[in-house]
Amino acid sequence: MKTHYIADLTPGTRLETTFLIQSKERKTASTGKPFLDLELRDTSGVIRAKVWDCDRLDQGFEGDDFVLVQGHVEAYKGTPQVVVSKIRRCADEEIDPRDYFPRSARDPEEMYAEILGRLERMPEGPLRTLLLAVVQDPEIAAKFKLAPAAMSYHHAYLGGLLVHVLSLIQLGDQVSDHYTSLRRDLILAGLVLHDLGKIEELSFTRGFRYTTRGQLLGHITIGLEIVRAKLRDIPDFPAALKDQIEHIILSHHGQLEFGSPKEPMFPEALVIHYLDNLDSKLESMRAQYAADKDRASDFTARNPALKRELLKPKLD
Amino acid sequence: MKTHYIADLTPGTRLETTFLIQSKERKTASTGKPFLDLELRDTSGVIRAKVWDCDRLDQGFEGDDFVLVQGHVEAYKGTPQVVVSKIRRCADEEIDPRDYFPRSARDPEEMYAEILGRLERMPEGPLRTLLLAVVQDPEIAAKFKLAPAAMSYHHAYLGGLLVHVLSLIQLGDQVSDHYTSLRRDLILAGLVLHDLGKIEELSFTRGFRYTTRGQLLGHITIGLEIVRAKLRDIPDFPAALKDQIEHIILSHHGQLEFGSPKEPMFPEALVIHYLDNLDSKLESMRAQYAADKDRASDFTARNPALKRELLKPKLD
Amino acid sequence: MKTHYIADLTPGTRLETTFLIQSKERKTASTGKPFLDLELRDTSGVIRAKVWDCDRLDQGFEGDDFVLVQGHVEAYKGTPQVVVSKIRRCADEEIDPRDYFPRSARDPEEMYAEILGRLERMPEGPLRTLLLAVVQDPEIAAKFKLAPAAMSYHHAYLGGLLVHVLSLIQLGDQVSDHYTSLRRDLILAGLVLHDLGKIEELSFTRGFRYTTRGQLLGHITIGLEIVRAKLRDIPDFPAALKDQIEHIILSHHGQLEFGSPKEPMFPEALVIHYLDNLDSKLESMRAQYAADKDRASDFTARNPALKRELLKPKLD
Amino acid sequence: MKTHYIADLTPGTRLETTFLIQSKERKTASTGKPFLDLELRDTSGVIRAKVWDCDRLDQGFEGDDFVLVQGHVEAYKGTPQVVVSKIRRCADEEIDPRDYFPRSARDPEEMYAEILGRLERMPEGPLRTLLLAVVQDPEIAAKFKLAPAAMSYHHAYLGGLLVHVLSLIQLGDQVSDHYTSLRRDLILAGLVLHDLGKIEELSFTRGFRYTTRGQLLGHITIGLEIVRAKLRDIPDFPAALKDQIEHIILSHHGQLEFGSPKEPMFPEALVIHYLDNLDSKLESMRAQYAADKDRASDFTARNPALKRELLKPKLD
Amino acid sequence: MKTHYIADLTPGTRLETTFLIQSKERKTASTGKPFLDLELRDTSGVIRAKVWDCDRLDQGFEGDDFVLVQGHVEAYKGTPQVVVSKIRRCADEEIDPRDYFPRSARDPEEMYAEILGRLERMPEGPLRTLLLAVVQDPEIAAKFKLAPAAMSYHHAYLGGLLVHVLSLIQLGDQVSDHYTSLRRDLILAGLVLHDLGKIEELSFTRGFRYTTRGQLLGHITIGLEIVRAKLRDIPDFPAALKDQIEHIILSHHGQLEFGSPKEPMFPEALVIHYLDNLDSKLESMRAQYAADKDRASDFTARNPALKRELLKPKLD
Amino acid sequence: MKTHYIADLTPGTRLETTFLIQSKERKTASTGKPFLDLELRDTSGVIRAKVWDCDRLDQGFEGDDFVLVQGHVEAYKGTPQVVVSKIRRCADEEIDPRDYFPRSARDPEEMYAEILGRLERMPEGPLRTLLLAVVQDPEIAAKFKLAPAAMSYHHAYLGGLLVHVLSLIQLGDQVSDHYTSLRRDLILAGLVLHDLGKIEELSFTRGFRYTTRGQLLGHITIGLEIVRAKLRDIPDFPAALKDQIEHIILSHHGQLEFGSPKEPMFPEALVIHYLDNLDSKLESMRAQYAADKDRASDFTARNPALKRELLKPKLD
Repeated sequence: MKTHYIADLTPGTRLETTFLIQSKERKTASTGKPFLDLELRDTSGVIRAKVWDCDRLDQGFEGDDFVLVQGHVEAYKGTPQVVVSKIRRCADEEIDPRDYFPRSARDPEEMYAEILGRLERMPEGPLRTLLLAVVQDPEIAAKFKLAPAAMSYHHAYLGGLLVHVLSLIQLGDQVSDHYTSLRRDLILAGLVLHDLGKIEELSFTRGFRYTTRGQLLGHITIGLEIVRAKLRDIPDFPAALKDQIEHIILSHHGQLEFGSPKEPMFPEALVIHYLDNLDSKLESMRAQYAADKDRASDFTARNPALKRELLKPKLD
Repeated sequence: MKTHYIADLTPGTRLETTFLIQSKERKTASTGKPFLDLELRDTSGVIRAKVWDCDRLDQGFEGDDFVLVQGHVEAYKGTPQVVVSKIRRCADEEIDPRDYFPRSARDPEEMYAEILGRLERMPEGPLRTLLLAVVQDPEIAAKFKLAPAAMSYHHAYLGGLLVHVLSLIQLGDQVSDHYTSLRRDLILAGLVLHDLGKIEELSFTRGFRYTTRGQLLGHITIGLEIVRAKLRDIPDFPAALKDQIEHIILSHHGQLEFGSPKEPMFPEALVIHYLDNLDSKLESMRAQYAADKDRASDFTARNPALKRELLKPKLD
Repeated sequence: MKTHYIADLTPGTRLETTFLIQSKERKTASTGKPFLDLELRDTSGVIRAKVWDCDRLDQGFEGDDFVLVQGHVEAYKGTPQVVVSKIRRCADEEIDPRDYFPRSARDPEEMYAEILGRLERMPEGPLRTLLLAVVQDPEIAAKFKLAPAAMSYHHAYLGGLLVHVLSLIQLGDQVSDHYTSLRRDLILAGLVLHDLGKIEELSFTRGFRYTTRGQLLGHITIGLEIVRAKLRDIPDFPAALKDQIEHIILSHHGQLEFGSPKEPMFPEALVIHYLDNLDSKLESMRAQYAADKDRASDFTARNPALKRELLKPKLD
Repeated sequence: MKTHYIADLTPGTRLETTFLIQSKERKTASTGKPFLDLELRDTSGVIRAKVWDCDRLDQGFEGDDFVLVQGHVEAYKGTPQVVVSKIRRCADEEIDPRDYFPRSARDPEEMYAEILGRLERMPEGPLRTLLLAVVQDPEIAAKFKLAPAAMSYHHAYLGGLLVHVLSLIQLGDQVSDHYTSLRRDLILAGLVLHDLGKIEELSFTRGFRYTTRGQLLGHITIGLEIVRAKLRDIPDFPAALKDQIEHIILSHHGQLEFGSPKEPMFPEALVIHYLDNLDSKLESMRAQYAADKDRASDFTARNPALKRELLKPKLD
Repeated sequence: MKTHYIADLTPGTRLETTFLIQSKERKTASTGKPFLDLELRDTSGVIRAKVWDCDRLDQGFEGDDFVLVQGHVEAYKGTPQVVVSKIRRCADEEIDPRDYFPRSARDPEEMYAEILGRLERMPEGPLRTLLLAVVQDPEIAAKFKLAPAAMSYHHAYLGGLLVHVLSLIQLGDQVSDHYTSLRRDLILAGLVLHDLGKIEELSFTRGFRYTTRGQLLGHITIGLEIVRAKLRDIPDFPAALKDQIEHIILSHHGQLEFGSPKEPMFPEALVIHYLDNLDSKLESMRAQYAADKDRASDFTARNPALKRELLKPKLD
Repeated sequence: MKTHYIADLTPGTRLETTFLIQSKERKTASTGKPFLDLELRDTSGVIRAKVWDCDRLDQGFEGDDFVLVQGHVEAYKGTPQVVVSKIRRCADEEIDPRDYFPRSARDPEEMYAEILGRLERMPEGPLRTLLLAVVQDPEIAAKFKLAPAAMSYHHAYLGGLLVHVLSLIQLGDQVSDHYTSLRRDLILAGLVLHDLGKIEELSFTRGFRYTTRGQLLGHITIGLEIVRAKLRDIPDFPAALKDQIEHIILSHHGQLEFGSPKEPMFPEALVIHYLDNLDSKLESMRAQYAADKDRASDFTARNPALKRELLKPKLD
């Protein structure tokens, strides 16, 4: 268990705790002496570290490894940095990824319970059976609680997928209240399942990146496979409903050039496409505002996902 | 006031009532005798009419004119048609356009009152002042109650703009409940104002078509002018808020190639863009389903606005 | 079994045989007498037919039904047409679709055997196991022998998918000979599997059209499901190879805007994309030349798939 | 009033004059001593400056401020730089922006007078009234004489808008001579008004950047508001002519994806679109040639506006 | 030589003159009697003709042939038509195409002389030599005087290319006066040569259509060949100037997607691109106004080249 | 003749040999002493060099010049570098470019002979005459043996064009065997001629870059000129065949936006387009794999030509 967090380190602190190595570079000091220049990260931030005795200590760890570090903190040009006296790689089982990456404000278990509660309140029927089978599958559940909703575009933190889906479920119920001819349970199903493939498209236990499978297939195609596997286990699942669920997953990016080989062909698929877009982009704006809150301008920097600057909020 | 409606006409009926001339063509019968072949319309439907004594009666009216017709109904190849004995053009002041075009299911006055009620419940402030000034302007109000929301794409019936805006206001309140950092009154303002220019872009008192001004400028630019005129009358309206309102109207189509010269640059503008799209397209789907309900296929015909066939709803 | 073919009918022939009704319209003769105007089709062509005693005979059949027709052939304005004395709908089990639609020049069984032979010559290994499991599955094989390769763009005839795949297999072997670093068996697998979803995307037993499932999902997504079902039954199929097979199917249209959510990311996927394109377009050109061979111009009519006119071949 | 210009500074010069701070960075010398590294600019160029006594002198000024600098010039690695002994921020009213930014070769007052003269020679009528009202409005005139025509793409210097408009007026008269059916005064009006919104879209008194309003609305929408304000003051301005003026401003970028929500719908609007493009791009080429005149290649560097390299002119 | 023109034919006229057959169809009258239904055209218009004795007279002519017709004019349903008593195909040498197609208002010889005059006033040098060699080549000159400037988009009449080039030359001189750094002779050369390939891209002696060569290569590539042929004959033509001339022809469509493989890379090429566009589109508008002058609307029908409706001119 | 190659240099080596100067910069050492920092290249690699006595030695050579260098090799921070004692520019005639640039694995003369052999085996006829005339033209042959097939996208090494064409010829024969209705000799001609313009589009004797002519016209247009020059010398070359050859060259990029002003309009042109694409992209993938073979990832870096990462090959 992690004992010290970067945000709390001040010059003088002695520490023995774990970090993720974000980058590692061998350099030469002006004295000609070689050293390792590391960037260490945990969920609270990033700190630079120096390993002077590097010929002895540089063994068995690389970028993206977790390490147990012993050392102390010094100030260098006004910024704290760690001077390392011992360092060794940790085994994966010593590590809880939530200690090393940004994570959701709300507790994932709590959000997961809320989603589950909503699904259990659905009327009996094949969609309820499917959704519970998916969400309660232990292997899926474990990843579902951890996954970010995207690499960097939106909800890019552990638990982000849960935050996104929970927000969508609430919105979906409101929209179903408003447009009474819509099939509420199909919308609910689409909102829970549309991004499910992200749990295998992204790798998020050592750093956020695409898995090989994710890069070759994408989360839409992966999600279809997960859902189809569950559908096979449900006797008498209606064939037409299966096609519709699959179409919703397939079409949720809305346009071919965004990776959906089909465009939404019925109202519930359309709703899922628009709500997903709305929630993703609002969250992307929120994160941009947070990042640029000290920027001296009426506008943020260019948001790479939205490809535009954003007007910063203020009281009028 | 209109006395007979097309939907009620049966062979044998004698009538003296008003219609809109949808088309007028001079033809020659197989006997060599000339006659006028008319299509007459009112809000309940379309009927064909024949004017035999056309050399005498074909005077002073053309397509898109309103006429007072005297005659009787006959069956021709199993379909009722009007045989005209007298016909004359009506003055515009004899006519209420709602008698001749498709119109909203709900009473426009009732919807207008509901919108007004919502605006009156806003907290005091410049946005409330602006919205009430716009909506209560008698000239604007009269057109606002009558206008369709589009030529043909969605809500293409008298009162359609009210139906669209009212639906959006309700959705907007739900979305504002959900995303608590959004400025509720700015969303409300954007939803009421974004399509206001339609009241001058479209002509809807003789047939739905673009006005010359509408075709040259579009409803975004026209709407901006209406709103700016009202803004000038409000003392001390905050300049930054004015820019934001204008940006919302300008950006509500979301992309340059859809006629918005700017893309939404803050969350409220983004919300208005997505809700407007969602409501328009769901309504376009609904109308397509109504039109194709007897079509012998799982799919509708191609929806020209969405450029795709739609899966027809059915119980699974 | 069908006894008369349209191409052989001449005035005077008496016939009692089966056809597909391509269109059916009730009309009125100049004498005022009603009749049915039918277009009948079989694999050899299309002929017009008249049913005079239509009040009695117009029962139980519509367009796209198969019918047993009794009657004789007359010449009308120089063209033979059938005068119908008896007509009744046939049950599907009385019908072999190959009698009613255009079909491949080569016998499907022969082409199927040739493909199978090539697969059996593959070295032992998971790909050989997969391909044989797919192609020898009786349900798949039955459709594989019948399916066209596309609705209308190319190889739009029964057996067309076999023709396309067989041509590609031969090309693929040549390309594998030429670029020796390519994995021959992966190319072979991709060529056999890439269009497999067509067997469920298209309906081809009553007329060529999209199935509901085909329209909602497309042949890429359907094909993935068929292949994945077979993969599940093969113990120890390498996971990385599974991803590559799936990527090949997914990426074979080459670009997002053509419905491939991923672009080819390794050489074998690229080869399949290009060979598929080349074979499809050459066949589309060939069919256009056949259709326009009597056209008095150096160019064909505009080919709708290629969106251009084609220079007709001639000796220079 | 500015006394020394950068272009004239040589090692040894003692100076006490004003500059714009283009950039300011705190650095540490190899001796460990901190200093300020400044880039100073005026209309004649840019020079680097060092402030050694920075703990005392670094007060009250940042990048984009105007400062009064006392010091002397030294050569550093062969390049002159200012060594600063005193520095303080200036108030805006001490400053004439034309001393600090690139500016037009011709005197703005002279160009303004030439434009005014041309407008006064127009025949009496509503367009003449409108144009004089706009151009002679003291607030508009002041900005019109100062504004660049674009941030960086073309005529990006003080007075650039005047240069662009004057060039277009001359061209417009020639084109009106050539195509005699064109309405000369409408072309003249469009050329004077099309870019007018630039005076509020761009900020050009401390550095060239977009105003908040400019970024939210763009110069087309801003320009429309300025022109409409003037139109309201002209009694009986013809409504159809107002629509045409507005359409010209709206459509002058020619295509939706370049920010014009309408494409030119009559000949005069088309002429303005093409002449504006021609003059802007020729000027962009001219500036590129000037910038790259010493580049050792037949081609310039890539012009970012035209997205291509340019063949440099030479005698053949 | 043609004696009667269609515009002058009235019922009762007896005629013996030549026409172009625009269409020819064999029909059956209600009496059962076969006849030929022809559309005849000459430069003044189109008239319908009937050939009753068709078994005897229908010999040796088809659509697009020129024929000598003997007959008289009758009124049919109020419209004059020719009743043919004799008809035979004419040899090409009996025909002057200008009698059968729309043609320029000005005399081609006069326009040609004007262009030649302008070229002769150029200063001595390689460009003057080239242009005179091209324009005075008898084979080129003959076609240059006859060719339309496009199939249908603009200047689609005999002599249209001359009209277009002459207009451009005049504009080009004005633009060269205005932008004094431009090379006047290079602009002049580009304007004369840019569309020269049209003389072989289009066939215009029997009807306006693409030649086989034109369809395979396009006028840009054809024009390059014509110009290169002349360049070879001019000793010591500067190589760099040759490249520039070729670049101007190649780039005059301005964008790759409009068939220019290179975009204009120097000012003169840019000028030619814009002036060509301006002149073509203004002429396309002019022709649209002429065609729609009696249309009861503020707007023309959709102009297929510009893909928009046009506001019709009127006095304000 | 070159005596030492960079790949063989080790600390201590004394050398006197030629290099290409890839870059040259004047710097100041920490001691304040000026020196030249050079990058030298030959076909085996790149090495850094220092010229200390630069005031005396820095004469008469710049980047892209060939130089004769005398000096010795030292290790600097573990990397060998040349310390220069003498250096002078070489004349072009002292240099064989193949010593300084990457080059094909196979001997160009051998590949050239193989191509020539294939052409000589063609049946007598105008295409054989043309191809031999082109390939045996001494000036063309010299460049054809040396040219890369592209600047950087694929086959970007001396002899690359030969490698590409030879590969295509072999593929083309296989495809002609497979599709028996294709004209084999036309395919062969297209494959040999389609990229011929590269020999003048690219400059490859001092560094790979575009020639001025190449940048203004592109290799398609240049290639057409070379081929047309040869065609003029062949008596009675069939005109239709000439058009087809030219169309193949013109259309081989397949789409307007890739610089082909015409799309392939007959089967042989289509084949050339697809084979050219396939061979270029496979080679681009191969080079990417070679460059990234030590990269610690399942994927390569982004390939700039294909705009995607590539899955690296491995045994499954």
